[in-house]
Amino acid sequence: MSRRIIGSLSLRLRVIIVWPRSRSLLLRLEPYSTTPIVVGTDIYIVVGSEKHTDPEHSVWKVAYWKVASWSKVACRFEAFGWHVICVKNGNTEYDETCAAIKEAKSVTEKPTLIKVTTTIVYGSPNKANSYSVYGAALGEKEVEATRNNLGWPYEPFQVPDEVKSHWSRHTPKGSALESNWNATLAYEKKYPEEAAELKCELPAGWEKALPTYTPESPGDATRNLSQQCLNALAKVVPGFLEINLRFGVREHGMGAICNGIALHSPGLIPYCATFFVFTDYMRGAMRISALSEAGVIYVMTHDSIGLGEDGPTHQPIEHIASFRAMPNTLMFRPADGNETAGAYRITVTKRKTPSILALSRQKLPQLPGTSIEGVEKGGYTISDDSSGNKPDVILIGTGSELEIAAQAAEVLRKEGKTVRVVSFVCWELFEEQTDEYKESVLPSGVTARVSIEAASTFGWGKIVGGRGKSIGINSFGASAPAPLLYKEFGIIVEAVVDAAKSLF
Amino acid sequence: MSRRIIGSLSLRLRVIIVWPRSRSLLLRLEPYSTTPIVVGTDIYIVVGSEKHTDPEHSVWKVAYWKVASWSKVACRFEAFGWHVICVKNGNTEYDETCAAIKEAKSVTEKPTLIKVTTTIVYGSPNKANSYSVYGAALGEKEVEATRNNLGWPYEPFQVPDEVKSHWSRHTPKGSALESNWNATLAYEKKYPEEAAELKCELPAGWEKALPTYTPESPGDATRNLSQQCLNALAKVVPGFLEINLRFGVREHGMGAICNGIALHSPGLIPYCATFFVFTDYMRGAMRISALSEAGVIYVMTHDSIGLGEDGPTHQPIEHIASFRAMPNTLMFRPADGNETAGAYRITVTKRKTPSILALSRQKLPQLPGTSIEGVEKGGYTISDDSSGNKPDVILIGTGSELEIAAQAAEVLRKEGKTVRVVSFVCWELFEEQTDEYKESVLPSGVTARVSIEAASTFGWGKIVGGRGKSIGINSFGASAPAPLLYKEFGIIVEAVVDAAKSLF
Repeated sequence: MSRRIIGSLSLRLRVIIVWPRSRSLLLRLEPYSTTPIVVGTDIYIVVGSEKHTDPEHSVWKVAYWKVASWSKVACRFEAFGWHVICVKNGNTEYDETCAAIKEAKSVTEKPTLIKVTTTIVYGSPNKANSYSVYGAALGEKEVEATRNNLGWPYEPFQVPDEVKSHWSRHTPKGSALESNWNATLAYEKKYPEEAAELKCELPAGWEKALPTYTPESPGDATRNLSQQCLNALAKVVPGFLEINLRFGVREHGMGAICNGIALHSPGLIPYCATFFVFTDYMRGAMRISALSEAGVIYVMTHDSIGLGEDGPTHQPIEHIASFRAMPNTLMFRPADGNETAGAYRITVTKRKTPSILALSRQKLPQLPGTSIEGVEKGGYTISDDSSGNKPDVILIGTGSELEIAAQAAEVLRKEGKTVRVVSFVCWELFEEQTDEYKESVLPSGVTARVSIEAASTFGWGKIVGGRGKSIGINSFGASAPAPLLYKEFGIIVEAVVDAAKSLF
Repeated sequence: MSRRIIGSLSLRLRVIIVWPRSRSLLLRLEPYSTTPIVVGTDIYIVVGSEKHTDPEHSVWKVAYWKVASWSKVACRFEAFGWHVICVKNGNTEYDETCAAIKEAKSVTEKPTLIKVTTTIVYGSPNKANSYSVYGAALGEKEVEATRNNLGWPYEPFQVPDEVKSHWSRHTPKGSALESNWNATLAYEKKYPEEAAELKCELPAGWEKALPTYTPESPGDATRNLSQQCLNALAKVVPGFLEINLRFGVREHGMGAICNGIALHSPGLIPYCATFFVFTDYMRGAMRISALSEAGVIYVMTHDSIGLGEDGPTHQPIEHIASFRAMPNTLMFRPADGNETAGAYRITVTKRKTPSILALSRQKLPQLPGTSIEGVEKGGYTISDDSSGNKPDVILIGTGSELEIAAQAAEVLRKEGKTVRVVSFVCWELFEEQTDEYKESVLPSGVTARVSIEAASTFGWGKIVGGRGKSIGINSFGASAPAPLLYKEFGIIVEAVVDAAKSLF
């Protein structure tokens, strides 16, 4: 049950023998990616049938390139700036295919697509070029007919000596390459420090470079605070990818390329950025990050209705919940500078788990009580005036709404209540803590709990419990300045205070 | 705070005066869609600057077509099979633009793209063709400079008489068109029945065409039962779109086109189908359905690890939760034939809310107690041997796992417990019910609750409560036959029985 998938273009390369008689060996490429973007000058060979007996069920349309028609693929890739070579007869023209590969190797300034036209299941007398062989096995009878048609007298799974020796000719070359590589590894023993740098291991004390803040530090949008963290990290973490790639408006391609970088070179730490709402266009690639254990950092800004006038198309509502539900994904929503630094403290070390940082467009204050150490726990208390782990009420917030929870606590405390304020910055990390720790933050005896988050309340029921209240937005947002929207949707101090009072 | 968005290509058409001196009136098109696919022969006019003073921040790359470079757009659209016309100087060449529109109108067999090259903020002496005018206002000083440069002496918001009369020339034509249309409406009064059919109103008793099933009916995959419902509906609902569009493997375009059909012709009911996991590639379009109140029916098959060998890339885990969190979206997961019919009973009438039907690949039995009427409530009891609304335990399931809940109930009843089995087929519909109804299904006094769903347990906390247990999968799936996977991941009768016993 292997779950490892090559991320960048989700390629599965297989060598298949299309027609044993001519020993034509072709690479078969199965791209599941919607956007064929590559960095570099790789060669991609696509083998497929141009004509179909059953055009309604064109195998290529069903399973491969997402284009209007197979015959236009070459034109489309030329438009993407690729070098394109067509091989008209991939069934039998071994030399033509070899020549195409040779030509492709000579093109070094851009990637090459070699379009090889073949017949699907060439050699099958009754099923070649039909839809029926795509989703189902050929069947014993047709296998026999195909064997006879191709003159293939060997037993099942028998590899003829001729084929074995043909492939074995690479063995001496491979041995030499391996010896050379092993010799290189001696370098690591002689110069461990330099080797570590080459492998981009994190240097001791790297995390000390992360900025810290006090309540007196100037407030800022967490998206800007994130930039401060990235600049600080770039100076001390050699593997932190500082090169800016110009992705254009191509979320899926961006995520896919970052997956490729993370998986190909474990020492490199790729991050990419866009508006949080546009993860809707990148979700396929982000799921591959999680599934393939690629530690990509997704820096997602404009994380709530707080972005204001761009309106409901740009205001994420369901996105935080949707990623909290995704396996092997850390969903962070930091409230200020310390929490943003805390998120980076974790995510830089999580090389097998992608992280998403939902960051604000609007300015936020540096809150008392937030800390990098707190973020490491996922959920933690930022202020509490109760004793004996028995506050009258627990107010829980994330990101831009943690400030509102803190303000509501002040109001309630003035009225004589004991209040704990909890930042729930990363649910997945909190889930990993010990039962003791969880009980110290959310004691089971305290059922008066109020959560506040400018997003869907879906999922909060588990945190606030059966008696608790969740303040959020279960409709789409609207276009207006942020303060007006917060008031309109009731994401305000008064709402938290009222909800808390209803529980006393 | 308008929330209405045109769905199909998410277009916002605005007429802008690019250069007042020449009165060149150009349509500005802002496509937010990643995939420029259209059905029909519409004309799309794209206006933009080809050269930039600041190529790193090319406005076109940031905000418009998602292509490698603007200069390749024409080539790419030709590859898509469009007719493409280029207007080289959209700033001043009014006649060239008019000629292009005339040519486009003459092309009736395919859509036309007119690429009009202009300077962004043409006429601004200091900011034309720069990034600074994309995201921010021009500023008072530069507005003044631009006015002087263009020779525009009018007050703000003053429309010169010359412009007014130019536009007003269309008024008589518009009046005539309106009169003609109103005359057509007289038809509706004279022939109400035929007019209703033209408008595709649902005929009385249409829902009687939906199939019903008994426990004796043969079991089947809900994806096949869905096909039975669609075939039955096509016979009685005139607006049910029976035309098959060949979308290819283009989830986003498919959803976007269905949005366009639903919004353009309210009498038509579009549905589209793919694997549930591939909603990751269609989420942008599905969110537009919800935001634009387009009643598209999403028929999503292969809805859990039950699909088997295709493995974790094809097995949805977080998808059900992710759509339950999306506003104005009905997420159905029917368990058998009656529930599938029930889902269609609702979704056909919901013309302002998209529906998603998560359907099984594997065969499921027709369960006792399921009903169309039950589905209308979102959550309902399918079996119960308790009295006084006080069962010892409530077992809650959806889709393919409702059968497991029912089997676990039998085991527990044999051991002397009273057990209620609840189908939670559509959370959003249950949420709309009265408090009395909700209490009759999930009495607050009964805290022994177990949910089972072969997906992320995220969100179930609210339903099962603080004491309850949720059986599901919070990791990715694996490739194996379905029964083996269910065993491996503990989605089995024994797990439900054990969880229930832990609550007694």
